[in-house]
Amino acid sequence: MGEFDLIDEIVRALGSAATGPQVLCGPGDDSSIVRPPPGADAVASIDSLLPDVHFPANAQPQDVGYRALAVSLSDLSAMAALPGYVLVALTLPDSDTVFARQLAAGMAEAAQVYGVPIVGGNLASGPLSICVSVHGWVAPEAALLRSGAKPGQNLFVTGALGGTRAAVEAGIADAGLDARLRERYFRPPDRGPLMRQLADRASATAAIDISDGLLADAAHLARRSDVVLAIDSQAIPIFEPASLAHVFAGSDDYEILFASTQTAIEGCTAIGRVEVANSAGVPVTVDGEPAAGGYDHFGSNR
Amino acid sequence: MGEFDLIDEIVRALGSAATGPQVLCGPGDDSSIVRPPPGADAVASIDSLLPDVHFPANAQPQDVGYRALAVSLSDLSAMAALPGYVLVALTLPDSDTVFARQLAAGMAEAAQVYGVPIVGGNLASGPLSICVSVHGWVAPEAALLRSGAKPGQNLFVTGALGGTRAAVEAGIADAGLDARLRERYFRPPDRGPLMRQLADRASATAAIDISDGLLADAAHLARRSDVVLAIDSQAIPIFEPASLAHVFAGSDDYEILFASTQTAIEGCTAIGRVEVANSAGVPVTVDGEPAAGGYDHFGSNR
Repeated sequence: MGEFDLIDEIVRALGSAATGPQVLCGPGDDSSIVRPPPGADAVASIDSLLPDVHFPANAQPQDVGYRALAVSLSDLSAMAALPGYVLVALTLPDSDTVFARQLAAGMAEAAQVYGVPIVGGNLASGPLSICVSVHGWVAPEAALLRSGAKPGQNLFVTGALGGTRAAVEAGIADAGLDARLRERYFRPPDRGPLMRQLADRASATAAIDISDGLLADAAHLARRSDVVLAIDSQAIPIFEPASLAHVFAGSDDYEILFASTQTAIEGCTAIGRVEVANSAGVPVTVDGEPAAGGYDHFGSNR
Repeated sequence: MGEFDLIDEIVRALGSAATGPQVLCGPGDDSSIVRPPPGADAVASIDSLLPDVHFPANAQPQDVGYRALAVSLSDLSAMAALPGYVLVALTLPDSDTVFARQLAAGMAEAAQVYGVPIVGGNLASGPLSICVSVHGWVAPEAALLRSGAKPGQNLFVTGALGGTRAAVEAGIADAGLDARLRERYFRPPDRGPLMRQLADRASATAAIDISDGLLADAAHLARRSDVVLAIDSQAIPIFEPASLAHVFAGSDDYEILFASTQTAIEGCTAIGRVEVANSAGVPVTVDGEPAAGGYDHFGSNR
């Protein structure tokens, strides 16, 4: 099967996920054309997913396709942006039609859940890699940046943490893996609606998605906002059957960490406070102790 | 050097190419934010470039960086879109700081020429691959699609063809390569300003960039427009010191093939006519003979 036939197969597998009311020109031309909402700013991010780095090489292609889109769209959720369109550049070792079709089916599944069309792509022959470029819209000044946290605010997290790391440690592609962990790894929940609602109500002023692990991402947010994030370990919501150790080991849960002046927010958990930056330059504390990095660093401080 | 340090190095190498008056949030947050021109539609495309497929593995990284951006932005030129912003996902075999910095310098060079900021990216560890996602703006209904060619129009091409294939055959990374061919391969001219001017004056109604070779891309345009493109081989402008054989061998020159009702256009060459689709389903003829594919197919018909 040639390149153009395989592209046709993929577009067919995407089905209605390749189109939508705002899509003026979908796959098949030099570029795609999408109509933005009036007056919106464009929000954009790009991610690459590689086998045995970002997903197990022996995972089901449909699961991989779902996860590829979901983790990329998480960057739009963290900014409180409305998903607009997605592009995918797929590199395959050979014209593996079955893999490509199943991968596309998983992407189509995620595209429906997130309400975003996959409007274009590229196919190349080479070592497997999935590059996903996501684009969304936000009203001027309405995006949640990493730099917007202020001392005195509370620190919140959506959902529960540690499940992704627990899945990795238990063997993601293992047939005996707990179904909850498997689902958690491949199909992280869409936090976009919640974050857009919080941004609309000005309930959140800074956010980041947890892609490097709670402590590492908390440090990114703290440095950008020039604050200290003081985390209370007992308050961290744990995804059953994971444990707190999984959270600190660097679980890429794709939940959202955010700062708010509120004290309680439905569907979210307060896990600490935003404090004034200290002279030692420590961006994150856990139970009052410095915790700048992931599990190893944190462990060495205890 | 860790991932975040290397990202800092790359952003430093990009310098002013990572920013611009429309960039509200550049590299360093979950996503980037760009302000579109009022009322514009979004035009988007994605490409992957792999060593020894899309560029010689032993080429200078700065040359590779320039070409990666230029060939991707060619998809915006073909639609007559104004470049808006670029994202790059880079996968490197290891933290090759020198390679990454030089690649970024070449991308920055191209970004200045095309007047487009590189607002975000992703860095992963794996087999070398460069994924470029380009985004631009076009007034509603103003984009040039592949489907807009009409019988009776003339067929034009920008610049001159065959140079890229001639460079490939002579050895692109060869020190003795003709300097004109080397430049032609790594730094294709920006046809965006010309195509936007032609679209503004309604001088062009359909266009495609030549990325698969003149005959293959002519076939794409012909099928989308449901017409025959009748090419006159003697009229094809040849890039010195290439030959017509290089053009028919499938030279990815990143010039633009377009249809127009005009008979002469400055800076472009009329190479044939748009004719009514025939019952045989032949999309392209050269000197009156069917020529559906690239060099091999065409050769077998002569």
